[in-house]
Amino acid sequence: MFRPEIKVIDCTIRDGGLMNKSKFSFDTVRNVYKAVCDAGIDIVELGYRNSKQMFSVDEYGPWRFCDEENLKKIVGDKKSKKTKIAIMQDAHKAVADDILPKEKSVVDVIRVATYVKDVDKAIKLANNATDKGYEATINVMSISVTLERELDEALQQIEEETKITACYIVDSFGALYSEDIDFFVDKYKKFLKKKEVGVHCHNHQQLGFANTIAGIIRGANYLDGTLYGLGRAAGNCPLELLISFLKNPKFDIRPLLDVISKDIIPLNKEISWGYSIPYMLTGVLNRHPDVAMKLAASKNEQERQNFLKFYEKLTEEEVED
Amino acid sequence: MFRPEIKVIDCTIRDGGLMNKSKFSFDTVRNVYKAVCDAGIDIVELGYRNSKQMFSVDEYGPWRFCDEENLKKIVGDKKSKKTKIAIMQDAHKAVADDILPKEKSVVDVIRVATYVKDVDKAIKLANNATDKGYEATINVMSISVTLERELDEALQQIEEETKITACYIVDSFGALYSEDIDFFVDKYKKFLKKKEVGVHCHNHQQLGFANTIAGIIRGANYLDGTLYGLGRAAGNCPLELLISFLKNPKFDIRPLLDVISKDIIPLNKEISWGYSIPYMLTGVLNRHPDVAMKLAASKNEQERQNFLKFYEKLTEEEVED
Repeated sequence: MFRPEIKVIDCTIRDGGLMNKSKFSFDTVRNVYKAVCDAGIDIVELGYRNSKQMFSVDEYGPWRFCDEENLKKIVGDKKSKKTKIAIMQDAHKAVADDILPKEKSVVDVIRVATYVKDVDKAIKLANNATDKGYEATINVMSISVTLERELDEALQQIEEETKITACYIVDSFGALYSEDIDFFVDKYKKFLKKKEVGVHCHNHQQLGFANTIAGIIRGANYLDGTLYGLGRAAGNCPLELLISFLKNPKFDIRPLLDVISKDIIPLNKEISWGYSIPYMLTGVLNRHPDVAMKLAASKNEQERQNFLKFYEKLTEEEVED
Repeated sequence: MFRPEIKVIDCTIRDGGLMNKSKFSFDTVRNVYKAVCDAGIDIVELGYRNSKQMFSVDEYGPWRFCDEENLKKIVGDKKSKKTKIAIMQDAHKAVADDILPKEKSVVDVIRVATYVKDVDKAIKLANNATDKGYEATINVMSISVTLERELDEALQQIEEETKITACYIVDSFGALYSEDIDFFVDKYKKFLKKKEVGVHCHNHQQLGFANTIAGIIRGANYLDGTLYGLGRAAGNCPLELLISFLKNPKFDIRPLLDVISKDIIPLNKEISWGYSIPYMLTGVLNRHPDVAMKLAASKNEQERQNFLKFYEKLTEEEVED
């Protein structure tokens, strides 16, 4: 049994790009795109279209900007008819003019990522996208540290002022338990009568997949995953687990297994993602994973492996707040 | 808020011993014992007491047998008053005579692991333990492939014929979703009016921790975890996550973080456990992880990393059944 309304979104290249400044090779992106299309995934997100005023083109790779010419190099003349292409714009780091009218673009969906405080910017970008002919979503980041009153107001505005397809619960810190997911899905559904609810979960507490299931059971229909969980810090809900759970016969896991073998596992040499004690601690303490990513990048192995010291530093800072 | 009836069991050395033939050094076991006691964990399981007739003492390390003299070397004269010591007997690989009367042993709890088919052997060993003055539990393994009629009958027998403290749902294959846990906890509670329900989860689908939470919510009070998830194949519910979730102030995570840094992470050089695609596939397909463990031990890297081939082999065998 499966729910046909469910849409699965692969965001390997976009979320994984937070671990390598979006510097994936064209071959990697091409192979991921092909595999995800062959597997029957509904939407594939190929990166950000953020502003070149705010990100240096020297420092960041092509998938931070997703220029149309680069996307065309990936898609070639084989654009999938089933799998839509998405890009993400950060509400506070992107501009409306970077989006062409839909008919001039290979992109189908614009996903706008925002903090609650920037919801007016997000609405502007989402409306820019839908006005130009795209589908759009709004992804509310760092949901575990939002003030409820502000979130309620933002959801009300999103309902009234946009034509987006779905609005996301984004657990950026990997801090939520399933009962929190239940709480947020219920809240979103209360405010968003004409939009779908999405979940984007991180794996700091090994709950990325489980919380996505919790979202499904509670009624979320837009579900994000990444190949082998590749993504920021402890990574995301693994796409291979998600489609195994969903049971929809339109999905085929085999191309995903193949691209994980050939393209994703080798990335482990340069990028290190997945569960670790420092990421777990930031999740448990509901903190941004940046501080643990900094630790993971430290050249001092003794420092990197001293979890007790890291915990004491994190909780000492708490007392000073 | 926490539920005081909940008991947390660390089984790092016992379940982890399935990955190294129970050959942990005395220092490792001593450090784990001390850390787990300092952290306020209710019970620590230090290995198996299986029969030397069935396991070669040359091939297996001391924690497959847990001789009293070896346990005493770990505990010394500092046996914790709060943390009980458990050992496990496999129903089909252990004998009653290997258990001394309680007053001659440092052990407090005998956990009997069994397949449903061996429940009569398990009941005999459990009664041997309680007759000799120990607490006992029965842990029903490979629950995801049991016939329901047989399980019901076994649970009824366990209720009527034993004085065990708790009976466990053991998801040996890491195949269960939270709704399955709900189903089994409900079933256990229906049959076991005078016993607690336990959950022992594996992480093949990254659900070890999430399924343990599902068990807690449904009323299971005996909860197994291991340090950093060390255990067979994809490993277990990580103890550090579990006690962070439980919030009982008697627990202190700090000694656990310290021993993970110093004793568990270094084991990664010899033992490889945790989520991987082959383990995930055995979980999804509800198969014993042995076949994936064999693949993981292969010296042929190309073979080891060819996930599609492994999947096709597994599913081809299915057709031949």
